[in-house]
Amino acid sequence: MNKVTILIYCKDRPNIIANVTSFIGGNGGNIVYVDQHVDSEQDIFFIRLESEFDGSAFSLERFKELFKNTLVGKFDMKWRMYSSETKPKMAIFVSKYDHCLYDILGRYNSGELNLEIPFIVSNHNNLRGIADSFKIPFYHIPVTKDNKVEAEKKQLQLLQEYNVDFIVLARYMQIVSSKLIDNYPNKIINIHHSFLPAFVGAKPYHSAYRRGVKIIGATSHYVTEELDAGPIIEQGVAHVSHTHTVNDLIAKGRDIEKIVLANAIKLHANRKVMVYNNKTVVFY
Amino acid sequence: MNKVTILIYCKDRPNIIANVTSFIGGNGGNIVYVDQHVDSEQDIFFIRLESEFDGSAFSLERFKELFKNTLVGKFDMKWRMYSSETKPKMAIFVSKYDHCLYDILGRYNSGELNLEIPFIVSNHNNLRGIADSFKIPFYHIPVTKDNKVEAEKKQLQLLQEYNVDFIVLARYMQIVSSKLIDNYPNKIINIHHSFLPAFVGAKPYHSAYRRGVKIIGATSHYVTEELDAGPIIEQGVAHVSHTHTVNDLIAKGRDIEKIVLANAIKLHANRKVMVYNNKTVVFY
Amino acid sequence: MNKVTILIYCKDRPNIIANVTSFIGGNGGNIVYVDQHVDSEQDIFFIRLESEFDGSAFSLERFKELFKNTLVGKFDMKWRMYSSETKPKMAIFVSKYDHCLYDILGRYNSGELNLEIPFIVSNHNNLRGIADSFKIPFYHIPVTKDNKVEAEKKQLQLLQEYNVDFIVLARYMQIVSSKLIDNYPNKIINIHHSFLPAFVGAKPYHSAYRRGVKIIGATSHYVTEELDAGPIIEQGVAHVSHTHTVNDLIAKGRDIEKIVLANAIKLHANRKVMVYNNKTVVFY
Amino acid sequence: MNKVTILIYCKDRPNIIANVTSFIGGNGGNIVYVDQHVDSEQDIFFIRLESEFDGSAFSLERFKELFKNTLVGKFDMKWRMYSSETKPKMAIFVSKYDHCLYDILGRYNSGELNLEIPFIVSNHNNLRGIADSFKIPFYHIPVTKDNKVEAEKKQLQLLQEYNVDFIVLARYMQIVSSKLIDNYPNKIINIHHSFLPAFVGAKPYHSAYRRGVKIIGATSHYVTEELDAGPIIEQGVAHVSHTHTVNDLIAKGRDIEKIVLANAIKLHANRKVMVYNNKTVVFY
Repeated sequence: MNKVTILIYCKDRPNIIANVTSFIGGNGGNIVYVDQHVDSEQDIFFIRLESEFDGSAFSLERFKELFKNTLVGKFDMKWRMYSSETKPKMAIFVSKYDHCLYDILGRYNSGELNLEIPFIVSNHNNLRGIADSFKIPFYHIPVTKDNKVEAEKKQLQLLQEYNVDFIVLARYMQIVSSKLIDNYPNKIINIHHSFLPAFVGAKPYHSAYRRGVKIIGATSHYVTEELDAGPIIEQGVAHVSHTHTVNDLIAKGRDIEKIVLANAIKLHANRKVMVYNNKTVVFY
Repeated sequence: MNKVTILIYCKDRPNIIANVTSFIGGNGGNIVYVDQHVDSEQDIFFIRLESEFDGSAFSLERFKELFKNTLVGKFDMKWRMYSSETKPKMAIFVSKYDHCLYDILGRYNSGELNLEIPFIVSNHNNLRGIADSFKIPFYHIPVTKDNKVEAEKKQLQLLQEYNVDFIVLARYMQIVSSKLIDNYPNKIINIHHSFLPAFVGAKPYHSAYRRGVKIIGATSHYVTEELDAGPIIEQGVAHVSHTHTVNDLIAKGRDIEKIVLANAIKLHANRKVMVYNNKTVVFY
Repeated sequence: MNKVTILIYCKDRPNIIANVTSFIGGNGGNIVYVDQHVDSEQDIFFIRLESEFDGSAFSLERFKELFKNTLVGKFDMKWRMYSSETKPKMAIFVSKYDHCLYDILGRYNSGELNLEIPFIVSNHNNLRGIADSFKIPFYHIPVTKDNKVEAEKKQLQLLQEYNVDFIVLARYMQIVSSKLIDNYPNKIINIHHSFLPAFVGAKPYHSAYRRGVKIIGATSHYVTEELDAGPIIEQGVAHVSHTHTVNDLIAKGRDIEKIVLANAIKLHANRKVMVYNNKTVVFY
Repeated sequence: MNKVTILIYCKDRPNIIANVTSFIGGNGGNIVYVDQHVDSEQDIFFIRLESEFDGSAFSLERFKELFKNTLVGKFDMKWRMYSSETKPKMAIFVSKYDHCLYDILGRYNSGELNLEIPFIVSNHNNLRGIADSFKIPFYHIPVTKDNKVEAEKKQLQLLQEYNVDFIVLARYMQIVSSKLIDNYPNKIINIHHSFLPAFVGAKPYHSAYRRGVKIIGATSHYVTEELDAGPIIEQGVAHVSHTHTVNDLIAKGRDIEKIVLANAIKLHANRKVMVYNNKTVVFY
């Protein structure tokens, strides 16, 4: 049994659903799940389908080709198709904070994540021990003002070598370059430690403390050129009060960051997120 | 343009989605929304579709007939079909508490609810003034040990007279009879002032206080024979602490009750809830 | 039995608690509640006490005088003292939106609010019917570009005439003037329909929609010169998704606004909020 | 500078606060924090104070003695006193689930927990590797029907040997005996994977799934004789829907369990929890 996930978006027009479902049915597929959305403001249609195809005769490549020739042109579709057999490969970028790394690896170990982690890369050496204890390759690529271009080149080499599908910045305290972003469009997931768009940039917990907010948050989003302004995948919050110091906010925030980032990773790995015009459609 | 909402469930089998979507497309319908779920434990397939049919020639009755003959038997479907032009009629049952009534009528007035409220019925006369100020007929049907059967007969008469589609018990402090339940299966929405299944029955805030819980809740559910055990539509919670007295819990609880009940009403009125085996499938 | 609430803040120094509690005890008072906080960053001490004084001989004026002479100078205290017998008088300012007004009056009616509402003022006449149905005086003071100064003069006259203690802007869609703010420092409560500091200013739900946030919020704060930048009293949030239109956000937001504003009103009316350096200390 | 935390409860009577604060002030202490509560239903007064005592001359033992002779008898107080220098010692009991253990040790490592972990004990050997990687002694004490008494004797020996102050059952899948409970009254913290009092006992996620609840939860409580009926310290919840399988509930539940248990541990370790009549007073 071959399980295929299809993600499509295009300008909204009549009969897209019927066309897509008939095409799948007509080619021996049984649709087991369908999720769909219309952004009526922008007039864009989104659909996500999971289908099962019997038999050893099925070829995903042939099906893709047929799909392209039959439907893609007709509706001017943007589309992606995945076999559920291939788990996506996720690289982890970290600096010195360990809470998100521990959290991700703990979930990975327990089988909660439907992905592979080929390696961890860091601009510091501090977290190597954690990588070792989970038996995952760890690459230390220091980043300074002077070696930025070279460091990034090494990162890209690693990403290609391991055939990485997407990247998670698990509190990686460096701004990634346009080149990396261009190579991984809507495929670099960041966790920002504030309730965006409030408190963009550095030290958001300090800003939240100064402003005297009663709720703090964390936001996972895809990285784009503009800092902390990419499409939001998931957000989480927690109540705070005047009794909390900045350090209390940081500690409380760690718990939100971990969960928000883990959820974003799972949604992305399960191919449940679509991006259009800097916003996400998330099929839970 | 005729908009039709279709709700179907049946035993899960291959190709249901393709069959349903082809049928709609083949009969001139454009599917604008589809939501679907498979309960793999019970092997039941659920689907909800919104379709648009062009032209004045369309007849919902004829379409229903055709649907019945073509698909219902083939897949042994349970199904309902609604024209989006007909707003459901909701009767409100109250006793003496006014917070849920105020809340529902405020939303009704502001156009937030996609339904009609033909009348309010109560076993007390206290809330007549509120009904009057919103210009909604109010019927006072006292309920005592001795007149239960007769009172209920009057209620049923009213419900039939006004062609009521569903009933909301907005803190109606009486147990409704089997007869009413049989006439409105999965069509009587109750708000229970606890986080079910905790604290079934009377005075749940007192029980919550005694147990020393740190979170209280409210639950809206369809009424069934067994007390507070019907299919849950929506639940809400709020944090509490040792500083809260029973009266504080009651006051805090009112806010949860209002919102949870309003959400359940909206979901039901928009035909987004399906029930199977005492559980709900809610298409948000 | 006379119940007195005392709120004090001053620079942090040793033995303030002992001094204050001894003073109260030495003057026949029994402390029934004490809440306290030290802002160690700014080195400021906050305390709130509820005390009971026996007998008819007690005079709040005399006690205040004694307190001033004995402790205030010694510790350079800022302080307020209230008899629990005097309920604060709250004026409500509204425009055309009715949800917060309905909510406040519903709570007022049910006895949930420990305050008096002498009148409602509005720049429109739309909500007069609601005021009438709750039997509360309603003043229509239109505000245009040309009559701003005069309109405000009328507002201030009303506020003085009725001896108003604090003002709640229940979705009052006008910017209040410096003069009003000066007359009611930290005594004008606004509800802003976003999770501040995100989306300051007009149409925050539209901005939230455009940004694609996954959580929306509302913020109640004291009004200061800078728009939407005053001390935050309470915040609330709700999860949203790509399925929500701007109108859905507005409808969902109404529920958050109502509850957040009601909580802020209750905290203020119960004298549980202190303000220092544009932040609040809220003793729940 | 000696920092002392005092926890007291007794029957409510006038002037307790003044008596306690004067006593501390009169013995050279500066009160830096005070939290207080009156349970008016049971007429019980609770207070928690943090005080600083200057100089090397201060002796906690002498102060305790003085306190006992001066105040304890007078008000018939139950009391505990701690030097902030002595961190409490917490033993961890686990079975095979690792998520709570990872979470606690990660926080311990990052300095978030104000306590010492002398050892981990388990009825299985599975998690030894984790203990090793955090360099904490791990004792494998198998528990069978036949060796229960002996196994427990070994546990008690370890607890005494290491001078353990309190125990956390981090998903320890065994019922602990009366003897252990008697030795550690209100000092054994359990995490139950449901929103108590709903779903007491085994397999609560399965029960929650069957009941079709829309919110799941976790509860940390002190262990008492009656199963899952001890004083509740903290509860947490998460929304779920019909799309979640039992395994999804279990995975989502792990995140709630971790945070709820960690919060309970922190509150207990910081001496912020008092217990009276099977309910907690928690000074946040």
